Amino acid sequence: MNDNPWSRPSGRAADELRAVTITKDFTKHAEGSVLITFGDTQVICNASVENSVPPWLRGKGQGWVTAEYGMLPRSTGTRMRREATAGKQGGRTQEIQRLIGRSLRAAVDLSKLGERTIYIDCDVIQADGGTRTASITGAYVALGMALDKLVANGSLLESPIAQQIASISVGVYQGTPVLDLDYAEDSSAETDMNLVMTAQGTFIEVQGTAEAAPYSMAELQAMLALGQKGIAELVHIQRTALEA
Amino acid sequence: MNDNPWSRPSGRAADELRAVTITKDFTKHAEGSVLITFGDTQVICNASVENSVPPWLRGKGQGWVTAEYGMLPRSTGTRMRREATAGKQGGRTQEIQRLIGRSLRAAVDLSKLGERTIYIDCDVIQADGGTRTASITGAYVALGMALDKLVANGSLLESPIAQQIASISVGVYQGTPVLDLDYAEDSSAETDMNLVMTAQGTFIEVQGTAEAAPYSMAELQAMLALGQKGIAELVHIQRTALEA
Amino acid sequence: MNDNPWSRPSGRAADELRAVTITKDFTKHAEGSVLITFGDTQVICNASVENSVPPWLRGKGQGWVTAEYGMLPRSTGTRMRREATAGKQGGRTQEIQRLIGRSLRAAVDLSKLGERTIYIDCDVIQADGGTRTASITGAYVALGMALDKLVANGSLLESPIAQQIASISVGVYQGTPVLDLDYAEDSSAETDMNLVMTAQGTFIEVQGTAEAAPYSMAELQAMLALGQKGIAELVHIQRTALEA
Amino acid sequence: MNDNPWSRPSGRAADELRAVTITKDFTKHAEGSVLITFGDTQVICNASVENSVPPWLRGKGQGWVTAEYGMLPRSTGTRMRREATAGKQGGRTQEIQRLIGRSLRAAVDLSKLGERTIYIDCDVIQADGGTRTASITGAYVALGMALDKLVANGSLLESPIAQQIASISVGVYQGTPVLDLDYAEDSSAETDMNLVMTAQGTFIEVQGTAEAAPYSMAELQAMLALGQKGIAELVHIQRTALEA
Amino acid sequence: MNDNPWSRPSGRAADELRAVTITKDFTKHAEGSVLITFGDTQVICNASVENSVPPWLRGKGQGWVTAEYGMLPRSTGTRMRREATAGKQGGRTQEIQRLIGRSLRAAVDLSKLGERTIYIDCDVIQADGGTRTASITGAYVALGMALDKLVANGSLLESPIAQQIASISVGVYQGTPVLDLDYAEDSSAETDMNLVMTAQGTFIEVQGTAEAAPYSMAELQAMLALGQKGIAELVHIQRTALEA
Amino acid sequence: MNDNPWSRPSGRAADELRAVTITKDFTKHAEGSVLITFGDTQVICNASVENSVPPWLRGKGQGWVTAEYGMLPRSTGTRMRREATAGKQGGRTQEIQRLIGRSLRAAVDLSKLGERTIYIDCDVIQADGGTRTASITGAYVALGMALDKLVANGSLLESPIAQQIASISVGVYQGTPVLDLDYAEDSSAETDMNLVMTAQGTFIEVQGTAEAAPYSMAELQAMLALGQKGIAELVHIQRTALEA
Repeated sequence: MNDNPWSRPSGRAADELRAVTITKDFTKHAEGSVLITFGDTQVICNASVENSVPPWLRGKGQGWVTAEYGMLPRSTGTRMRREATAGKQGGRTQEIQRLIGRSLRAAVDLSKLGERTIYIDCDVIQADGGTRTASITGAYVALGMALDKLVANGSLLESPIAQQIASISVGVYQGTPVLDLDYAEDSSAETDMNLVMTAQGTFIEVQGTAEAAPYSMAELQAMLALGQKGIAELVHIQRTALEA
Repeated sequence: MNDNPWSRPSGRAADELRAVTITKDFTKHAEGSVLITFGDTQVICNASVENSVPPWLRGKGQGWVTAEYGMLPRSTGTRMRREATAGKQGGRTQEIQRLIGRSLRAAVDLSKLGERTIYIDCDVIQADGGTRTASITGAYVALGMALDKLVANGSLLESPIAQQIASISVGVYQGTPVLDLDYAEDSSAETDMNLVMTAQGTFIEVQGTAEAAPYSMAELQAMLALGQKGIAELVHIQRTALEA
Repeated sequence: MNDNPWSRPSGRAADELRAVTITKDFTKHAEGSVLITFGDTQVICNASVENSVPPWLRGKGQGWVTAEYGMLPRSTGTRMRREATAGKQGGRTQEIQRLIGRSLRAAVDLSKLGERTIYIDCDVIQADGGTRTASITGAYVALGMALDKLVANGSLLESPIAQQIASISVGVYQGTPVLDLDYAEDSSAETDMNLVMTAQGTFIEVQGTAEAAPYSMAELQAMLALGQKGIAELVHIQRTALEA
Repeated sequence: MNDNPWSRPSGRAADELRAVTITKDFTKHAEGSVLITFGDTQVICNASVENSVPPWLRGKGQGWVTAEYGMLPRSTGTRMRREATAGKQGGRTQEIQRLIGRSLRAAVDLSKLGERTIYIDCDVIQADGGTRTASITGAYVALGMALDKLVANGSLLESPIAQQIASISVGVYQGTPVLDLDYAEDSSAETDMNLVMTAQGTFIEVQGTAEAAPYSMAELQAMLALGQKGIAELVHIQRTALEA
Repeated sequence: MNDNPWSRPSGRAADELRAVTITKDFTKHAEGSVLITFGDTQVICNASVENSVPPWLRGKGQGWVTAEYGMLPRSTGTRMRREATAGKQGGRTQEIQRLIGRSLRAAVDLSKLGERTIYIDCDVIQADGGTRTASITGAYVALGMALDKLVANGSLLESPIAQQIASISVGVYQGTPVLDLDYAEDSSAETDMNLVMTAQGTFIEVQGTAEAAPYSMAELQAMLALGQKGIAELVHIQRTALEA
Repeated sequence: MNDNPWSRPSGRAADELRAVTITKDFTKHAEGSVLITFGDTQVICNASVENSVPPWLRGKGQGWVTAEYGMLPRSTGTRMRREATAGKQGGRTQEIQRLIGRSLRAAVDLSKLGERTIYIDCDVIQADGGTRTASITGAYVALGMALDKLVANGSLLESPIAQQIASISVGVYQGTPVLDLDYAEDSSAETDMNLVMTAQGTFIEVQGTAEAAPYSMAELQAMLALGQKGIAELVHIQRTALEA
């Protein structure tokens, strides 16, 4: 399109994450609460513990983890309609909160949780691309905080965490595979892929969508490799936050 | 109940506001954005400008101001059901957002706004009593920022602000009238009254509800006097924030 | 606007109620049923007794009083959309029925009601201003009838009525405070205030809204004084109806 | 079941209508308004004129007639849930209002109505069986009043009424065909049939449902004959009301 | 309209059914499953057995039969909006499924069914008029299959079928009474009547609606006679299918 | 779990598709209509052409393709609640129909479609695993038929198909990667992945979810290879059907 050399709108290297911060105890009521930022994307992740399970699990001696996701109406460049006013959650919202819930259930041994439900609420305060990957990554920390509290107060003998998880996006931007797309990239990327992975480098979710053009096997492999790198960095940031 | 002398749970004097802070530009997309805190109560107030009006106002050459209110599910001590999931806004939510909208329309000369709608979104991040009064007080500042921007970019010749408004609660706690109830007081007060007033000391809204027992004319007068004092302080804080 | 002396559209004195009538046993099925009229405003108030309480009160040995409000689609000058067709109650409806319910709970000692719920249905047949104040005033009589029936049939040893309540509107019309606004006044009043008070002259609710311009402390005091006068008259009319 | 001779709960003869009254101008706002009673069944029928038609009829030079039906929650022996609260109209309500609308459209030459919609609202104040037949019979009068008003004020040159219609129920009660079932009969009838007919004795609707047992051709013929007698009487009562 | 002799669009005789086929075991999961066709109208009727009853029947020792009806969006000439997307079933759908349910309950002695619910799902794959009559006629066969299975596996000692039922439409097309209207006739018929009858020739439902003009007693009698003929043929086809 | 050698419940080889059939013109009204079967999974895919586009595309000279998905209540082993009755589409339904729509838009050059919308309705008649992959694969054929018809009748000069697409599931069953999971496999698989690919072997969608345990990079690669094989076979079956 022009003869400038390729560069990302943010000037980042192709395999470079945005600045990631995790602020614990961001709100005071939740059993686990963090504000996570991926650059200008800001998400509050709250974990709430309730001493009951959904009807279909009653009496089975196991727990449940579920998630809900929302965006403030003006978290985006143009105001979106409030879903509570619209009377229902849109398809995108439901898809994202189902993904968050599935991902976090994969992090927990539900049989060790007791008959409890952990509700994860991910609310986007400011959006700049990657809200679902920030949500999952932050929610893992909020969940960990809530479980640590159950251990600390004697409700659980040991943490039911089965494996640490994190999530990042990868994509193909102007022909080059890149890590952690921001909104400027996301809205014009040829391909957008979200990965949820464990600290061991195995996969929980791979969701890759061709936006402008199908992607080749080579591009897919390049994106997977970038994702592995990004997840390793996020896992480290999560661990530092949890141990602080 | 005990023979200790009367005191408020927070130790405040009867006519003392909580610490009030207003952080401008809390999020980056909205035309006006503030985080307002009344003690532990935290509300994001975003003002969005749209260049159209509701159908019933089209072609009349005037603008509109409307508000929506929400609480994050875990802004409260016990998690509340998300209204987007429930499929509708509850009665309390609708009552509050109608109040916010009416109050802000009283602050603006709609005929000077042009055919524009200002959406005010008040989202409670953390609740500790007084969310509706904090919302109105913060929303006035967000609205002022958005209108200043319209003047600054030449869309409007002068600000359509007609009068400055703010809001505070008063009540009767253990027999004594008090200013700016927090949750510990609010949940056991005999009476709870919300005032919306102008910088000139006139009234936009008076909403006083007997919770545990009817209140006398003398108590009503004492609450009105406390409210006048609190509004004067809030008006000063708003002005300082807007001029910063 | 003109040089005629000030007068109300109805020709009433500033402190004069409209004709108020209460017809008992207006419908035959309800435990308490009245048609109340405030001039051309006509509301059917039915009280229904059910021998159960909402889930959150079960086993606590106390009762509950709740209210619902509706308007026939053509109770008004222009047909309104039927809320059952729209699929939800509007914000105004919910606000009014929450007010009616709160007001009537203040009239009853719920701990003496037993595990029963009294449903109050206020349905406006014809509207000409003041439908919420007529609803509350009539609902008190319907409630009293239903409770008297529970005493008469031995279900209760004594009436759980704690205090008699009634409701009236006051406002500022063309610069003058007036009592009991009809639609012609209400739609152009500078200020509209609804009061719910006890027979003893104490306050249950004060809800005053500036419509066209903020109101001064002097106007507020004048409106409160008018309201006291009107409530005293309504209390007498209610008592006469109940004792008939 | 016993050896008493057969009799109706009300003591009426098998071919005897309940007392039918039609009160015109029951409410003041509607273009046509009646209260119709069939014994203890009381229905307010309001006709509203709007100068527009549904989208699919725009520009076709014809009008539309549509109906809505509702019951006050305590119009019945046991309180029913308010449909506006439930968030939707039940199947029975929709079925009845579709029947009312179809029936009234059969009474009108829509091509002579101009681009207008007549809304018919039938609201049951008190129910004792036969609410849909009373609704149709009363709605015809309300419709006639509204159309007469359009002729009187010069909006229409002549009334677009094509034919007079009325409606009555017939059934088989304890083995005997009867006319105009009240609730005591309706709730235990073997068969319930609603007829909508013209003043000329032709049929608009026949809706006969076996409740407890199928009905024979002989019973069907007997019910049709009873219906013809009842319709003739209702047509006379309608005409008297309209000409009053 | 023209001087051609009268004929039906399909060329059928006035008293001639369309080709009717019943394919059993059309899907593999349901306890009873048929595809029924009335000419080009194709409906899948599935009967599902559940070992519980609705709350209001619990503990009464009897069963329940209920029906739901749907049309694929493109079962019709023009695509209809999917009701699951619209968020509710339309009035026509509810009316039809209430009719199907009532009709099938008349076919069964519910006291012999035990505390079971039979759900009948009628889903129209392709529509060409008469979908409700095909649904009822096919649903009877699916219901019979499901009940036979309960007898075969020892859950019931004998079939609770009380009487065989079927359904057909009749109408007046261009002045002549006809049997089993297809879409071309239905959309222009003066009158449309649906009959549900027993194998003994008694009536479960008669629902006749004047579409273009009221119908006379003579036309009504002619339609009833045509219906009796059609039902007799359908009863034979059902019996053949069930015994196959 | 046992010492039998590994085998699939169906006895298929690990890389073996189920029998796939495509029946064109399955229903008569739609512009493109097929019944596709993947073994016992049966889906009706109908494509409908409308000569308009959604509001946000008006006047841009391009078309739109969108999809809706549904399951008959008894398409499954246990009856599911009908979504039209529940009043909304579940999260899974929305997720699937968004996937179908995105996939088919990738197959079409929307700028060559003109201002038309193609609605794709995928309705599952019988479910045995893989309903979404069968839906996409069949929908491509229905879409192709509808577009061919637009070319044949002169509405389009050439087909706007940009590339042929198909979809298949892969997974890990008892430790072994397998192609095209049926319900018995799907409900106990460790991992389930759905692929949408082009005839050229490039990717439109990759959606892989760990069900019981995270999957390794090696398993991911094996699944991708199986998918490539399956897609190649489906592409051939589609082509044969379209050319028939």
